[in-house]
Amino acid sequence: LGHSQPQHLLRNDPLFEINIDVAGKGSRGSAGAVYRQIKNAITAGRLVPRSKLPPTRQSTRIFGVSRNTAGQVYERLKIEGYVVTRHGSGSYVADKASLPSRRPAQRHRRTSFSHQLNNFWLRPDITAAMGFWMDPPGQSLRQAKTSVIDMRPAMVDSRLFPFDTFRRMSAKHLRALESRPASYKSPQGNQGNFFLRQAIRKHIALTRAVVCEPEDIVVTSGAQQAFDLIARVLVTPGQTVVALEDPGYPPMRVGFAAAGAKLACVGVDDEGLIVDNLPRDAKIICLTPSHQFPLGITMSARRRKALLDFTRQHRAVIIEDDYDGEFRYEGGSLEALRSVDSGDLVFYVGTFSKCMLSAFRLGFIVAPDWAMPSLVAAKNCLDWHCPTPLQSAVAGFITGGHLERHVRKMRAIYKLRREALLKILEEDLSKSLKPIHSNYGLHVAATAKTAVNLERVTELLLRRNVKIHTLSRYFLGPQTSKGLIFGIGTVDVPEIRKGIGLLGKALHG
Amino acid sequence: LGHSQPQHLLRNDPLFEINIDVAGKGSRGSAGAVYRQIKNAITAGRLVPRSKLPPTRQSTRIFGVSRNTAGQVYERLKIEGYVVTRHGSGSYVADKASLPSRRPAQRHRRTSFSHQLNNFWLRPDITAAMGFWMDPPGQSLRQAKTSVIDMRPAMVDSRLFPFDTFRRMSAKHLRALESRPASYKSPQGNQGNFFLRQAIRKHIALTRAVVCEPEDIVVTSGAQQAFDLIARVLVTPGQTVVALEDPGYPPMRVGFAAAGAKLACVGVDDEGLIVDNLPRDAKIICLTPSHQFPLGITMSARRRKALLDFTRQHRAVIIEDDYDGEFRYEGGSLEALRSVDSGDLVFYVGTFSKCMLSAFRLGFIVAPDWAMPSLVAAKNCLDWHCPTPLQSAVAGFITGGHLERHVRKMRAIYKLRREALLKILEEDLSKSLKPIHSNYGLHVAATAKTAVNLERVTELLLRRNVKIHTLSRYFLGPQTSKGLIFGIGTVDVPEIRKGIGLLGKALHG
Repeated sequence: LGHSQPQHLLRNDPLFEINIDVAGKGSRGSAGAVYRQIKNAITAGRLVPRSKLPPTRQSTRIFGVSRNTAGQVYERLKIEGYVVTRHGSGSYVADKASLPSRRPAQRHRRTSFSHQLNNFWLRPDITAAMGFWMDPPGQSLRQAKTSVIDMRPAMVDSRLFPFDTFRRMSAKHLRALESRPASYKSPQGNQGNFFLRQAIRKHIALTRAVVCEPEDIVVTSGAQQAFDLIARVLVTPGQTVVALEDPGYPPMRVGFAAAGAKLACVGVDDEGLIVDNLPRDAKIICLTPSHQFPLGITMSARRRKALLDFTRQHRAVIIEDDYDGEFRYEGGSLEALRSVDSGDLVFYVGTFSKCMLSAFRLGFIVAPDWAMPSLVAAKNCLDWHCPTPLQSAVAGFITGGHLERHVRKMRAIYKLRREALLKILEEDLSKSLKPIHSNYGLHVAATAKTAVNLERVTELLLRRNVKIHTLSRYFLGPQTSKGLIFGIGTVDVPEIRKGIGLLGKALHG
Repeated sequence: LGHSQPQHLLRNDPLFEINIDVAGKGSRGSAGAVYRQIKNAITAGRLVPRSKLPPTRQSTRIFGVSRNTAGQVYERLKIEGYVVTRHGSGSYVADKASLPSRRPAQRHRRTSFSHQLNNFWLRPDITAAMGFWMDPPGQSLRQAKTSVIDMRPAMVDSRLFPFDTFRRMSAKHLRALESRPASYKSPQGNQGNFFLRQAIRKHIALTRAVVCEPEDIVVTSGAQQAFDLIARVLVTPGQTVVALEDPGYPPMRVGFAAAGAKLACVGVDDEGLIVDNLPRDAKIICLTPSHQFPLGITMSARRRKALLDFTRQHRAVIIEDDYDGEFRYEGGSLEALRSVDSGDLVFYVGTFSKCMLSAFRLGFIVAPDWAMPSLVAAKNCLDWHCPTPLQSAVAGFITGGHLERHVRKMRAIYKLRREALLKILEEDLSKSLKPIHSNYGLHVAATAKTAVNLERVTELLLRRNVKIHTLSRYFLGPQTSKGLIFGIGTVDVPEIRKGIGLLGKALHG
């Protein structure tokens, strides 16, 4: 075949995508051209530090100069510091640090383009909502990360995750992917008898008494994409009123705000969302009935009934965010709203971020029939579907019983942490703080009994490497209650003792 | 600790999340209550077929009845067909198929809610654009999938992917994830010295001569999310004019349409996008300059210059979709527009769907400085970040040189397929079809020389298990050229011969 190929095919090594403009081939001039062009490519960054240069034996083909000439060019570049040679392995672009005359990377800031940008994404309230978990600007930890006692909510202990098992599942299902021809991947979630959706169905039936068919589930890139998806399917910009708990989970608000919803904040008391305060034109009601975020309240049966009545009467829908419902410690089970409703009012949002790992970015919506075709079409438009290898690995993990085992194990561990926390709060800090009773979850909130400046207290703690949030950052409207929130996801019992001990000192003197 | 726990904690096994309302404890009545409630849970689907029932030895704790009573309840349910026992392993809910009196699952279709739905997602044009790769409705394959010759574009041969190596990378980096404490994951892409973003930088510098820093890259869930993200950041609904190639890649249009852009279709000739036909108010210009989708044309240097001039003059920006630029077979390299521009006009969109696997759902944007903060904030709001295990595995795959090796291997293979395709088109079908010259990519287009009804021809072929697209489905405006498009991603040379042979028969006889 070789003789029939056009000459220029032989000239460039296609993976060496640099224009070498070989004008005067064979002449001494071409050595200079090759030299200048390689040098320019290196200084402009088009040839990356440490990347391998073509072997000189290919120089005729690639540069159009003899091997000898190429050797001279490389030698000159080496002397000038652009190239290094490794014995027996060839020539390489020098390390970034050792390149001559390093200019600072050219950063073009032509702000005249900013007029094109939608100003929503960098609005201070949006940035604050998405960064709710971050340390306040200007405040930073003193020591290395490892010694930090991190009691922020919504975090889990990844050190206790059974990585070996998950790795086995990953490998097994990657192998399965290999043996199948490329096939249609459903935007709704893993195909092949709905593998992941069957597994989710089983998981939530067992742990949450939520009953559905695989057809009722759409797999999302975590709960955050679930909110975005629901908002884009249900919200008419500038028109739809969305009611949200206040205090609440800030990133949930963002999903609806981005779709152009009119947000209405509704307070929470010791029975959960105050249904009487819902605006009558609310068409979407978002809440966390199992374990209110951040207060930890489980919505009462009476309030649930009132909510369902309101929803039916006003032809609204409910978004039930059940982020850590797997972790119930006590109390009779109060079923998910989705279990009580016949299934046409409630969008149930679940996630594997708490019962597995947030880094997997997998969650799901159990949605009413009438909304499913739109949700699936929207998911398709947004990113086709979630990554197949991860979906399969998580499905295998569930189907093999490993998730159930992990949840049982973690529940026992979190339960001990929670009891230790409540005991020490009761024994040492009962003058300052009143824990809010809570049946579920990975955090406990406590309201302040005194007028102490809690922001100051948490600032002080941060300087001692203890991260504890005040409730303030979870309010959108006026802050109706003051207090602290204690995450137990990433701290063991000794750390809890130490952290709360330091809190006591900061509070009392 | 046990004695201090409240009684109700002992009552329910928390993973068995069914309300067992044990009214008259100890009495014969409670056996009936337990019986009814388990039966109801099974028939309502809340207890899933094949799931394990609690062992009778835990019946006091879970149901509040004696072991003996629970045994009687299970026995009755067994007789009635709701429960099966497996010797030595306990009692299980029966198979779905063997459950008594199976009612069809209740599907509630309360269409009165549909008024809440945004009607964009199910619009016929949107559904058609996202389903461009599907068979026409009503037409279906005759035989099993395996015997299909699939020459649709935009598909790759997953059978040739080095799964073993990728599995090794996956496992290795899952192990690394394990040893690190839960840490901040950047929405922009893999943290830890920008691992994946460093790898992408190296990959595109090598294969595409695109120069950037890791700070210029945001990792996305495939190219589709890149379009969605760019659209949501740049488009003012009802106002921004977005120019797109016609024919073009239909799902790209959808991303911008969903954000409320005004779409303007611009024709393509043998030099690429006809810059003179751009509407003067176009603010975003989307195109595929390396390998026009679907025609396969590489945009000429002259046309590229005109495009950049237009863009600067009208303060517009360019979205450069470089979906298969790694696969260049011949011709001098024409650098990416992003390589030519100083970096403030061009959003370069890359994907790992063609050079690796689409199932991984990973792509990226190389974006101008001025837009990066908004893009990162938007990515954060949409789904926080892409899954960490996949990002790390792909980064390891690139850094270890495996992607370069795979691209080299696949390029050689695709090149042979392409040559075989062009040869047989030339030899056997030159009276009917004129292949369009193309330097890059995984497909070749050919225009029709005669007035034959190509839709009929492809319908006929589909019935013979050969999938070949006509150009018609890639047009949004009037169809200015008629022809066929031949994907070489999933077919080997004998399959190409067979497919084109059948095409010849359908065309000529």
